[in-house]
Amino acid sequence: MDRGAVVRITDVAALAGVSPSTVSKALNDTGSLRESTRARVREAAERLGFVPDASARSLSARRSFTVGLLSTDSAGRFSLPVVLGAENALVGGELSALLATARHDPVREQHHVRALVARRVDGIIVTGRTTEPREPIRVPMPVVYAFAPSSDPEDASVVPDDALGMRLLVEHLAGLGRRRIAYVGGRAEQAASLVRHETLAAELAARGLELVGSPLYGDWSEQWGRRAVDLVLGGVPGAGGSGDGLPVDAIVFASDQLARGGCDRLRERGLRVPDDVAVTGYDDWDVMSLASRPPLTTVDMQLERLGQRAAELLIAAIEGDPARGVERLAPRLVVRASTLGDA
Amino acid sequence: MDRGAVVRITDVAALAGVSPSTVSKALNDTGSLRESTRARVREAAERLGFVPDASARSLSARRSFTVGLLSTDSAGRFSLPVVLGAENALVGGELSALLATARHDPVREQHHVRALVARRVDGIIVTGRTTEPREPIRVPMPVVYAFAPSSDPEDASVVPDDALGMRLLVEHLAGLGRRRIAYVGGRAEQAASLVRHETLAAELAARGLELVGSPLYGDWSEQWGRRAVDLVLGGVPGAGGSGDGLPVDAIVFASDQLARGGCDRLRERGLRVPDDVAVTGYDDWDVMSLASRPPLTTVDMQLERLGQRAAELLIAAIEGDPARGVERLAPRLVVRASTLGDA
Repeated sequence: MDRGAVVRITDVAALAGVSPSTVSKALNDTGSLRESTRARVREAAERLGFVPDASARSLSARRSFTVGLLSTDSAGRFSLPVVLGAENALVGGELSALLATARHDPVREQHHVRALVARRVDGIIVTGRTTEPREPIRVPMPVVYAFAPSSDPEDASVVPDDALGMRLLVEHLAGLGRRRIAYVGGRAEQAASLVRHETLAAELAARGLELVGSPLYGDWSEQWGRRAVDLVLGGVPGAGGSGDGLPVDAIVFASDQLARGGCDRLRERGLRVPDDVAVTGYDDWDVMSLASRPPLTTVDMQLERLGQRAAELLIAAIEGDPARGVERLAPRLVVRASTLGDA
Repeated sequence: MDRGAVVRITDVAALAGVSPSTVSKALNDTGSLRESTRARVREAAERLGFVPDASARSLSARRSFTVGLLSTDSAGRFSLPVVLGAENALVGGELSALLATARHDPVREQHHVRALVARRVDGIIVTGRTTEPREPIRVPMPVVYAFAPSSDPEDASVVPDDALGMRLLVEHLAGLGRRRIAYVGGRAEQAASLVRHETLAAELAARGLELVGSPLYGDWSEQWGRRAVDLVLGGVPGAGGSGDGLPVDAIVFASDQLARGGCDRLRERGLRVPDDVAVTGYDDWDVMSLASRPPLTTVDMQLERLGQRAAELLIAAIEGDPARGVERLAPRLVVRASTLGDA
């Protein structure tokens, strides 16, 4: 396979029969040239497959037109869509994205930050695996934090609006007439578990309702979702397909994985979802929310949109218009059979 | 928060009371300087947080020390670990990784390829969502294809050794005394479905065995895994916890998602995994292989290692030692309860 060498501006000049500076003027639409000359140069450039060296643009603009995407995460469940959304928006702005994944290793993160500074990136987007606030990085260029906000309120951060997400779920459940609602969180110390519980309790209180039982915390696994159902239902036999006498008519789970496990356990106990107990998840992670039986009513945090918004804020900051503080991005309620049934 | 401006070499020179060229010599360990001068410069550089501009290295080496990571994929299930493995190896080689995701859009891919060429990347790693061969990209720098091989046998590609993976599974099942084995694939036209079936049939034949029934093809969902179990078992009632009279004693599924659905359906039909029917998956995708009841015996394609190997081949090619043809990377058998039981 013939890949050939890099085509240089002098090759284009030779083929078009003009000087290299004329080629530059013709391709950059600058200077005063006859239209026929411009056309001849363009044709020659096209025939040779000439691609201008991006570093020329950088030198004249004193910018690298490159942005760092620093992720503390490797698993990528949450940070990947953020990175992809950011990359998408950067490409639209004719910027390139340098990927740097730190894998929860502070030494590795430091190494990456120094490398990005050495590359003179125009700015950096920092993303993480959870919504816990994180220490800011100290660099001489604009930074925007996405998903995991900076602990410094002067920094610009974009995070999902978890409180709004939970409000949407409660409105939906209340609209369906559900009144006896229990909550199953993931890890007890995490913002995703706590904020969702607080909002749920406040929203129920605003409707004169109370959470059934204490909030339950465990981990983020399906297995915990299954066990939590047993804790919620207690000694209720529940067999026979009737919800009469059940302590709850809905369980709000803090993630799709938990909710999927919950649906499995409810079915195994002979209860119908949603006829006896409605179930909601959180995340709209398709391999969980769609594979669940039944498919889950859940909240889509719009993570790609979040990455895109972080890129927009970063581009504005690079152009001299920086934002400050935490911007909360509205999530989207996704309604499926786990609350609505097959109807 | 004071981020300050970029610290320049002249700032370091001023603080250390030397010339900029002395700073350069001191930090690059070149020239002949007194050790005390070198130390003074280093201290000044550290105090100011001076990071040398990487473009100086590029200019002197006529290389950008940047590699493109071009992914046709966005979902990232398979390409993400490949990208992460490659990035990891590149960082080790003091290279930066420009991320470019094409999202199955040929126009977008062309745009990305041109942008990478314009950036004068030293080389490109191309990865994709499936193991189907793909059209090569035409660029004037080395390219290595990872996971999805190039259709041009002269190119360098690294792919998972699916045939070996299936051999490891058959050896394991045969060693456990399983003799009546059925196969459930994903989409019929895909290499991942077909190669796994061919190898399975050949390995069984080598042991004087035959596949039970025809290979079954559908899609890659859990739902298809569940339905396929019904097709394999046919009208067999199967209740009562006894495997007697079953047409199979093992089902080989072409993915973890399929196998997880299969385990669920076998349990729902009152059959025990693995006592009545052993089950194997493929991929070792943890949210499927570990969440499955029971957890799945499966094959880990070592995708991070594959990305790392692609980066190694690319670095060698950049340094003038290119590889050719397809290299197959050995996968790893992961044994869990779906074949071994709880023992």
